[in-house]
Amino acid sequence: MAISLEDAMTILLEKVKVQEKVYTPLEDCYNRVLAEDIIADMDFPPFDRSPLDGYAVRMEDVEHASSLRPVVLKQVDYVPAGSWPSKNVETGTATRIMTGAKIPEGADAIIRLEDTNVHQDMVSIFTATGANHNICRQGEEICTGQIMLKKGMAIKDGALGILAMLGKSRPLVFKKPKVAILATGTEIVAIDQPLEKGKIRNSNNYMLMAKVREAGGEPILLGQVQDDIDEIEKMLVGHEDVDMYITTGGASVGDYDLMEQLFSKLGITPLFTRLAMKPGMPVIAGCWHDALMVALSGNPASANVSFEVLLRPLLRKMSGVEFLERPRAQAKLKKAFNKKSKSRRFIWARCENIDGRLHAEPIGYQGNGMLAGLLPANALLDISEGSSCLPIGTTVEVRLLVD
Amino acid sequence: MAISLEDAMTILLEKVKVQEKVYTPLEDCYNRVLAEDIIADMDFPPFDRSPLDGYAVRMEDVEHASSLRPVVLKQVDYVPAGSWPSKNVETGTATRIMTGAKIPEGADAIIRLEDTNVHQDMVSIFTATGANHNICRQGEEICTGQIMLKKGMAIKDGALGILAMLGKSRPLVFKKPKVAILATGTEIVAIDQPLEKGKIRNSNNYMLMAKVREAGGEPILLGQVQDDIDEIEKMLVGHEDVDMYITTGGASVGDYDLMEQLFSKLGITPLFTRLAMKPGMPVIAGCWHDALMVALSGNPASANVSFEVLLRPLLRKMSGVEFLERPRAQAKLKKAFNKKSKSRRFIWARCENIDGRLHAEPIGYQGNGMLAGLLPANALLDISEGSSCLPIGTTVEVRLLVD
Repeated sequence: MAISLEDAMTILLEKVKVQEKVYTPLEDCYNRVLAEDIIADMDFPPFDRSPLDGYAVRMEDVEHASSLRPVVLKQVDYVPAGSWPSKNVETGTATRIMTGAKIPEGADAIIRLEDTNVHQDMVSIFTATGANHNICRQGEEICTGQIMLKKGMAIKDGALGILAMLGKSRPLVFKKPKVAILATGTEIVAIDQPLEKGKIRNSNNYMLMAKVREAGGEPILLGQVQDDIDEIEKMLVGHEDVDMYITTGGASVGDYDLMEQLFSKLGITPLFTRLAMKPGMPVIAGCWHDALMVALSGNPASANVSFEVLLRPLLRKMSGVEFLERPRAQAKLKKAFNKKSKSRRFIWARCENIDGRLHAEPIGYQGNGMLAGLLPANALLDISEGSSCLPIGTTVEVRLLVD
Repeated sequence: MAISLEDAMTILLEKVKVQEKVYTPLEDCYNRVLAEDIIADMDFPPFDRSPLDGYAVRMEDVEHASSLRPVVLKQVDYVPAGSWPSKNVETGTATRIMTGAKIPEGADAIIRLEDTNVHQDMVSIFTATGANHNICRQGEEICTGQIMLKKGMAIKDGALGILAMLGKSRPLVFKKPKVAILATGTEIVAIDQPLEKGKIRNSNNYMLMAKVREAGGEPILLGQVQDDIDEIEKMLVGHEDVDMYITTGGASVGDYDLMEQLFSKLGITPLFTRLAMKPGMPVIAGCWHDALMVALSGNPASANVSFEVLLRPLLRKMSGVEFLERPRAQAKLKKAFNKKSKSRRFIWARCENIDGRLHAEPIGYQGNGMLAGLLPANALLDISEGSSCLPIGTTVEVRLLVD
């Protein structure tokens, strides 16, 4: 019995666990998943600072200053960036201050250098100012106690900058789930071996390697093995640190497909043996030791879709990511899809924004084995069971192949 | 004089070169940029093959077969996947065949196992078939001579699968451009150092590291250095294999900004010293040996925008990628942007598809120094010079922060 993708997902999401956490040097954290909330233990800026080179003054001193009638103040201090004022700004005085430097006590505005002139220790101010002008306030960007970053977020440029600002040189991130990938099939040879008659090369290892990486996992390529239960078993044992095993081939439900027999030999109870969808129907899943064992079709495109819609969200959960699924949207068909869909169908498509509207173009002919259709795809159309042909302009559900 | 972003781009695109090419093991090629067209030197499938387990027959033999009146044929051969037929299928005979196996000469259709019954060497066929039924034709996916992959494409799952299919175990990819990143500023300390009074931590190294990685480059973190031309020079020399240097800080055009002096000391003629846009205005660029030297603002958000709109396309060109720029689109403002824009302005925003239409929400207050606004952003609004306040519903230009 085929079960729905959603039921399969519910079953498997219950079985998989979020990875362990590990302190990791910040320079290795790009694209890793944060495993702790980051709460600011300081303000940023950590002190009131000047956004430009100029003079720190008291507003009341310069309220009548103009280019014709400059106000002259006595310079009492100089604060380059990285230093600390040694004097307060009292009435009639000013402090020279550089970009990023601490604003001295007593000053309530910064006059930019271009509006001043200095002769020995006397500074002419040629403009008036409002209070708080050109002052970056302590805590303006980050306030002590504020949750700056949330557990489960992927660490990109902004988060890396904030972690650095706060001195989190070894944040806690989730370990990447390890995914072992094995292609089964007597017809399959390694990619650098001569191609004898009747053989094809192991493309599934590499295609799935990319999918696993993209999902945040760490792929382990086990290569290929002939259609022999004992040989398949030999290839799979001895990788106890693996979190998920994916095999391709032998996963249909005919008498000559070995994977159900393998599950039985390994003592794995299949949770289900196929999904009610095309392509990607053959999926046998079960638990083996602490890992998930999943057998997919040997057809690359079929295995790809099964991975995309079922295994990717699981890997995302294991990786600790907050949002498991791809963003969904509605799009208008740019080209008719002239095929009835008896079962639910996923179709690779190219989505494009035209004048603010999303349009989707289904890509070429899609046999189970076709990988070329994947190349331009940036979305999957999700076509319901029992749909008729879809004329141009039909609104369709799409899953966008972005984070 | 500030020049337009587009003029700056034109100037710099002429100065940068595409990286050298290097043969690379396929397992290391995920997300690398292909440096050669891949032309199929074989058909795929390499032979006519069966998509399922069944019997290879001659259509004319079974045209009257039905469940009530089966046709009985003599099994003459058995072809498991990975082997080659030893006999042709003659009138009155059939060959047992497994998924993926070569179809014997003489057969023109495959009857699936479920529609047959076998007793000793006699096979009962319970269904008629059309010609070519269940036959995957040689070359159906890939034809000899066809250009399968184009130079300049990023290698993702589909391309990896196709490279493997064709036995390209060491494709030619472009070397990643190396980008050295140095933060200047006496106020800046390393992220794992104690934060003395008046100091802040080096967030720009890490923020730009992420930007460089995302753009396909290889970041080299040079750390931080005080505002001292000799010290800055010392940090920059001795990295002769670097393709681009990015410094932050000291890039404004006041008297106290050092980077123009540094350029002069290093003998670099600035190609321009600022861009007509906000944030991200301070950008001093020139050529140093075979590399590009670029000084950005010390304000993280300003440096981020300069990188995003100017340096990223350059790095993409150096990486060999075909499409340099982010995709652009039009979106409706979900929230008003109540600020006039004297100069051109880039504003971080969150774009979302609602009922097939793109909507953009500008993110919070954006001072030059603000990194928090980056966290939820997936787009940049591009607001023209001289724009008034933009009410809700206004159609705006956005750059989507995806490939």
